[in-house]
Amino acid sequence: MTITEPTTVSTALDRARAALRATLLEDRVLIDLGSPGLYGRTGVFEHVYAAVDTAAVRSMADLQSSVLRFPPVEPLAAFERTDYIASFPDLAASISAFTGDDRAHRALLAARERGERWESFLEPADLMLAPAVCHPVYGLVTGTIPQQGLWFDIVGDSFRREPSLDPMRLQAFHMHEFVHIGTPDSAKEHRDGRIPAMRSLLEGFGLEIDVVPANDPFFGRVGKILARNQVEASLKYEFVTPVYGDAGEATAISSANLHEDHFGTSFSITTADGETAHSACLAFGLERITIALFAAHGTDPASWPADVRRALAL
Amino acid sequence: MTITEPTTVSTALDRARAALRATLLEDRVLIDLGSPGLYGRTGVFEHVYAAVDTAAVRSMADLQSSVLRFPPVEPLAAFERTDYIASFPDLAASISAFTGDDRAHRALLAARERGERWESFLEPADLMLAPAVCHPVYGLVTGTIPQQGLWFDIVGDSFRREPSLDPMRLQAFHMHEFVHIGTPDSAKEHRDGRIPAMRSLLEGFGLEIDVVPANDPFFGRVGKILARNQVEASLKYEFVTPVYGDAGEATAISSANLHEDHFGTSFSITTADGETAHSACLAFGLERITIALFAAHGTDPASWPADVRRALAL
Repeated sequence: MTITEPTTVSTALDRARAALRATLLEDRVLIDLGSPGLYGRTGVFEHVYAAVDTAAVRSMADLQSSVLRFPPVEPLAAFERTDYIASFPDLAASISAFTGDDRAHRALLAARERGERWESFLEPADLMLAPAVCHPVYGLVTGTIPQQGLWFDIVGDSFRREPSLDPMRLQAFHMHEFVHIGTPDSAKEHRDGRIPAMRSLLEGFGLEIDVVPANDPFFGRVGKILARNQVEASLKYEFVTPVYGDAGEATAISSANLHEDHFGTSFSITTADGETAHSACLAFGLERITIALFAAHGTDPASWPADVRRALAL
Repeated sequence: MTITEPTTVSTALDRARAALRATLLEDRVLIDLGSPGLYGRTGVFEHVYAAVDTAAVRSMADLQSSVLRFPPVEPLAAFERTDYIASFPDLAASISAFTGDDRAHRALLAARERGERWESFLEPADLMLAPAVCHPVYGLVTGTIPQQGLWFDIVGDSFRREPSLDPMRLQAFHMHEFVHIGTPDSAKEHRDGRIPAMRSLLEGFGLEIDVVPANDPFFGRVGKILARNQVEASLKYEFVTPVYGDAGEATAISSANLHEDHFGTSFSITTADGETAHSACLAFGLERITIALFAAHGTDPASWPADVRRALAL
């Protein structure tokens, strides 16, 4: 099991992460499932999580987005069209299943009995865990979109294979995303026009927020160049909050992303004018916002400041 | 890709399933994702789904269960303790991830470029998709439970690898489960005492309901014996509704299950008297109930009978 944090050298950041994790576990906000970055969540977590989600949806209500929900797995064919494996192989996760008969099953169980691994008895199932909740939407929008563009309200499971003891970095989490597909201008307007409202929503939760240019965690040497290009082109802004104070960099809890023609090209989506469609996505990291709230205000929401409770309708 | 339905011989049941699937897709209740048993869900689906879930929770409110939520994946170690791979290998799904360096990544991409499968570049990640939402709870309850027992309210993702064109049989779905861990008597009371209320809740939705002894789909030849034993011991009751009329058997949309000491033994849970704990689980199949409602009343909830709308607070 690879753990991204060092376990022998303890930095101030390591200690701050360990302290938050210990508090969340001791106060029964999260429950350790025995694998880094996977937690059970209790009633108090769910209560705040639902309040965060409701407030996020309310802040985007005027968009009148079409609601779409997707399962936590996606067909391999759809995954392939996003080229995710080229950019983020280390975060991807594929699914295998058993397709054998009684005899193959007995062989699997015999190997298991001997203490051997039995995954080699399974076959790839042509399914991947969904790494980004907005990916499936582009495959559904083919051909020419209406003049005014399209808006989608999508919430779903994301899985990224990065086991970590940082409670702000889960392997399985949820994003609530508001996606627009339209022209270069309307995509940029969707991304930029909403940044002040998202910032003030998160600040209303009593969180200290900065909006910073950011990059996705592209893999490897080529990835370093892609990441630099992304920052230079100002494609991604993150809403960050100093969960660990001075011990480390502020952590992203939401983002505003311009994809330019990336998905329009990959999925052959065109505007009414016959140009390649552009897209943009506003994303709320639901678990990260929730945990940032517990980190900022403590594990008992009844004792949170009155204006924070009001902003969350708690 | 294995599809459980024959594609050449068309029975009355096949035709009924295909007709319901076509209606749900044409009326934009579900969206085809290109893999049997995986669908996108639109606003109208989510509206009914949330109403079903809220009504189910309300019907169990007096239990004052502890809320627990789990991610769609579970650690292999936890999965192993349930012995699921021995009984249901064909439904299980394991997760693999890429752990290589830049060079291995280039080899993966080269294989992909040649049109070859690239899953062999991934390694087992010690994670499984969760096949049953109540499984993780037993690992969290260790040692001796309180005299009065424990109650849990769990909702989560289930994944079962059974690709099907029957819209009532999804690969990824959600169950809302109410679990009790206690004595043999209290477990049986939790299971049996709630059956009339569950039946009347589902009948209040305007569904024709029968409660029948049932079995889990144990794998292989030995599985046939296990299934028969389960029925004979009356361990599982299913709430079934005739989604396809006379064309096929009624479909289960909820269940009431007695595990006896199965999980108490596997997870070393004991009662205050020092005996092995028993457990029972009441499970609402949220997507199945929702789709049964669309099948029974049509795809426009505004036109559903007034008493059904009232029961669902629509």
